[in-house]
Order: sequence, then structure tokens, then C-alpha cells
Amino acid sequence: MPINPDAASVPPGPATERSWDSKDALLYAVGVGAGSIDPTGFELEFTTENSKDTPQRVLPTFAVIVGMGGSAMSSIGTFNMAMLVHGEQAIELHREVPVEGKVKTTGKIVAVYDKGSAAVIVNESTSVDAVTGEPMFTTRNSMFIRGEGGFGGDRGPSGPRNVPPERDPDASVTYQVRPDQALTYRLSGDRNPLHSDPEFAKMGGFDRPILHGLCTYGFTGRALLHTLCGSDPARFKSMEARFSKPVYPGDTLTVKMWIDGGEALFRTETQNGDTVIDQGRATFLA
Amino acid sequence: MPINPDAASVPPGPATERSWDSKDALLYAVGVGAGSIDPTGFELEFTTENSKDTPQRVLPTFAVIVGMGGSAMSSIGTFNMAMLVHGEQAIELHREVPVEGKVKTTGKIVAVYDKGSAAVIVNESTSVDAVTGEPMFTTRNSMFIRGEGGFGGDRGPSGPRNVPPERDPDASVTYQVRPDQALTYRLSGDRNPLHSDPEFAKMGGFDRPILHGLCTYGFTGRALLHTLCGSDPARFKSMEARFSKPVYPGDTLTVKMWIDGGEALFRTETQNGDTVIDQGRATFLA
Repeated sequence: MPINPDAASVPPGPATERSWDSKDALLYAVGVGAGSIDPTGFELEFTTENSKDTPQRVLPTFAVIVGMGGSAMSSIGTFNMAMLVHGEQAIELHREVPVEGKVKTTGKIVAVYDKGSAAVIVNESTSVDAVTGEPMFTTRNSMFIRGEGGFGGDRGPSGPRNVPPERDPDASVTYQVRPDQALTYRLSGDRNPLHSDPEFAKMGGFDRPILHGLCTYGFTGRALLHTLCGSDPARFKSMEARFSKPVYPGDTLTVKMWIDGGEALFRTETQNGDTVIDQGRATFLA
Repeated sequence: MPINPDAASVPPGPATERSWDSKDALLYAVGVGAGSIDPTGFELEFTTENSKDTPQRVLPTFAVIVGMGGSAMSSIGTFNMAMLVHGEQAIELHREVPVEGKVKTTGKIVAVYDKGSAAVIVNESTSVDAVTGEPMFTTRNSMFIRGEGGFGGDRGPSGPRNVPPERDPDASVTYQVRPDQALTYRLSGDRNPLHSDPEFAKMGGFDRPILHGLCTYGFTGRALLHTLCGSDPARFKSMEARFSKPVYPGDTLTVKMWIDGGEALFRTETQNGDTVIDQGRATFLA
């Protein structure tokens, strides 16, 4: 039994530091499709630093890039990385992400669940400004580790959360993911060849490379930002979502939103009607 | 008369140093459209560093990015930068550009011509490996400075060079330039808002942002590399071309080649039949 079922009682590891600059934020923006015209134009505040009367700003989902780390993953035990699947991802922003900055991030395993066939590890990372100590953002992700369940642990919460009401969505936004999208997205850090190398993807059981889940997350975050927050990142408070199916570069993504005050439930579907992100919830300054 | 007609007799300025790494080369590659599927697939050797049996290599035209500098431009005198237009660009590769490296570059004004209405400044930069001193590449560009001619200088060479024979091209390759292409290309260094900010472009007399000339150059170089060199950068020896008309993001570029042994003459046209690069010549190991 290589997974440590008590990993959640292990204290946080040492904080890690991560800095970024304007170029990192611009590269992330084009990586998640910002500026590709439809339907929000060039999104110049996110894709350029020198457009007239348009100071650069940062897409809220960039927090998943710079808020990673400080993980206590070593306390989990040993397992086969190829069996790991990104299950859920949440971000909570305590302030707008600045164009450049440096954060200190502390990570902690907050839960280990036993789903029978799989173990689920929930990791939470808290990032503060490395200089001032000001809270910046909290990220939470859950990892499915196939083949590592059955250790007699807590099953954890079950049943779907964030189920949208039985009506047509209040808003929906459609974006085209380019066939080569992952080649740009990966330059923001995740170089897993599953997303670029057809040979490697075949070994992983896929016909061709699949898109990074966090790239789909970024596309979805852009749709939420533009629709719910009038494109103003200062109004974007939080986003949580579950990855339910792989996206292929070249797919079309439609983000459907059900809005109630400062909260929206959402899901993301492809051109085939497949739901690729579900159980989504965002909060914002209405 | 603010242009110094004797700038070509000024000795080279101090050498400048420039280093690059794998990520810089990958970012340049996606910036000039590599990996955008048609007609050369994902071009994984230029867009990834970890694909199976596919070591990363560098597009030859990356030399225009890392070979810039060491310029003796300060010896030219003062002029309005808004009047400057990129006229011609040549590169000569003394070896394949490595995935990471550091060069020492020396620049020299090699000619100042008086075209009547405009002055033309020809700058040549020579880059050597900063550690070993091994010759790496030579770049040459000519800059048109409108409004600065009429100083009674040499007109320089006239009449078209590299005129292709009167027959259909031996090969032609068509690439789509994406509407947001410049937003990625600019991250390789040239942040001139003429290529991204619609307001700025209007002030410059354009309906909308125009593509970087050197981005068009990079697309053209890819077509030459794949067609003439079997995609092998080690066989790419030199490329010279003249910018004859602006390209708009979203245009389709067709590179037409007339091949004779280890030499090809070429030009690049848009979907409208406009010639945007002409008087092109490339040499390669046939």
C-alpha cells in the first residue's frame, strides 16, 4: 500500500518561491487563446503591455501557474505518475494578480480519499506576496491516482456539486482551440509530452495529443471573466471546476453559465456535446 | 542634414553579447507559425524539446533575433524613427544555430546610400560564439529612412536583383498567418505597437496593425527550409530578401521558389497576389 492514508495530517512542507514578469503573463494569455479574435477581439489588456490607454492586466487563471508549488506531495508515498489524472481545480483570488510579482507558496495535503479503484489526493496551496506577506491566492487541486484505492479509507464527498438549474444557460461563449494550441500553452511550464508528442500520446492510450486540462481551464476562465466581470480581473473572485473528459486541440469549447447574483454555475462542452469541465462554480463582484 | 553620409567609415562599435535558451527558440518557432499543422505538421523538432526520437532544432531565421545588436546606428546621426522602414534582410549561417548559446556580435554600417527622397543605411552584424569564438552567423539589413535623402551621396545599386526565370515556380508552399500571429511573435522581442495596437497603427497610416516584416521573413524561411533542405537546418546556408509590401495578420502567404542546384530564387505573395517579399535568394546544401 504505497499511498499514505494519513498524508493529510503531515504538516505543510517548506514554502517555495516563484516570481513572474510581464512576459510570463502575456505568454500565458496567448497560451489560453487570448487575442484569437472571436468573440472578444485581441484582448489587448492581456496580450500586450504597450497599447494606448490599455494598461496590461493578468488573466485570473494565471494563478494556477504561479500558485503551484509548496506541495507536500512527498508525504503521499510513491505511486506511478502515469496513473495520475487531474481531477478538480479551484482558485480563490484575494487580490488581482499583478503584472509582475513574487509569491511565497505553502502547500498542504488536505484530504486523502479512497474511491475503491483510485485514491484521491486533495492539495491546497496558499500564496502570499513574498515581500509584503499580503495574501494573493489560494489554489486547490485534486488528483486521481488510478489503482491506488482500496486501503479502507474515507470515500469523501460523493454526488455532483454545483448542479445548474433546469433551464437554458443565461450566457454561453464559444472559443475555438487551435490545433497547435498546446505548443504555445506548454511554454508556460507544463512540458508533459502527452500534450504534444503523438507517439507519447499513443503510449498513454490516446489517438493523439490531448490538450492540457489547465489550458481548457484557462479558456473557460476567459469566458467567465468576459461574461461575468465585464473583462475586469479585479471583479473575479473564485473558480472551481472538475475535469470530466479530455479535450483535443482543434476542438471548439462552449462555456455555458447559469448566473445568480455574484455566483455562476458553469460547464464547458465541445462541439460534440461532450462535457469536458463540469460542476463549475465561479464567484465575482456583480 | 542629420544623417552622417560617412557613417560607413566609422569603425565598428563595441561587441554586444546575447544569449538564448531552448524556450526562446521554441517561442520564436510558434511565433513564425511553426506547428500550425498545414502543410508540415506540428514541426515537433522546432516546437518541442522532448518528443520521442526528435531532438530539438532551431529554425535558421532565428539568427535575425539573436544576431541583432552590436549596431553602429549611433554613428548615423539623428532622424525620426517613425520614418524608418525595414528594407532588406539577409542572413548567412556559418553553422546550424544551436538550441542554446551565447554570441558576441559586432555591427558595422557598411553603406549609406542617397535615394533622393530617402537615405538607405546598410548594417552588417557578425556573431561569433561568445565562448569559443567560432563564427556563427552574419546578418545584414538595410533601413530606409524616408525624408533623409538628398545629401548628394552615392545612389547605390539599382534595378532588381535575383529576378526569377520566366517559368512557373518549381515549388510553392502556402501558410496561413493567424489574425493573432503578431501577439505571439512579438514575445520574441520586437514590441513595436504598430504590430498589435489598432490605435497606434492608425496613427502610422495603416487601417489596422501590420505583421512584423521579420515574422513574414520567418514564415518564408520555414517554407524554404522544408522545401529546399528537407527540413534539415544544417543544410540551410543563407537567405536574402527585400520587404516590398506590408502583410496583415490573417493573410495567406505563398512562397514561390525557382530552384537551381544549391540556389533558389523566391518571392512571397499574399492571397491577393501582392508580392510582400521579393528579390529573394537562398543557398543550401542540395
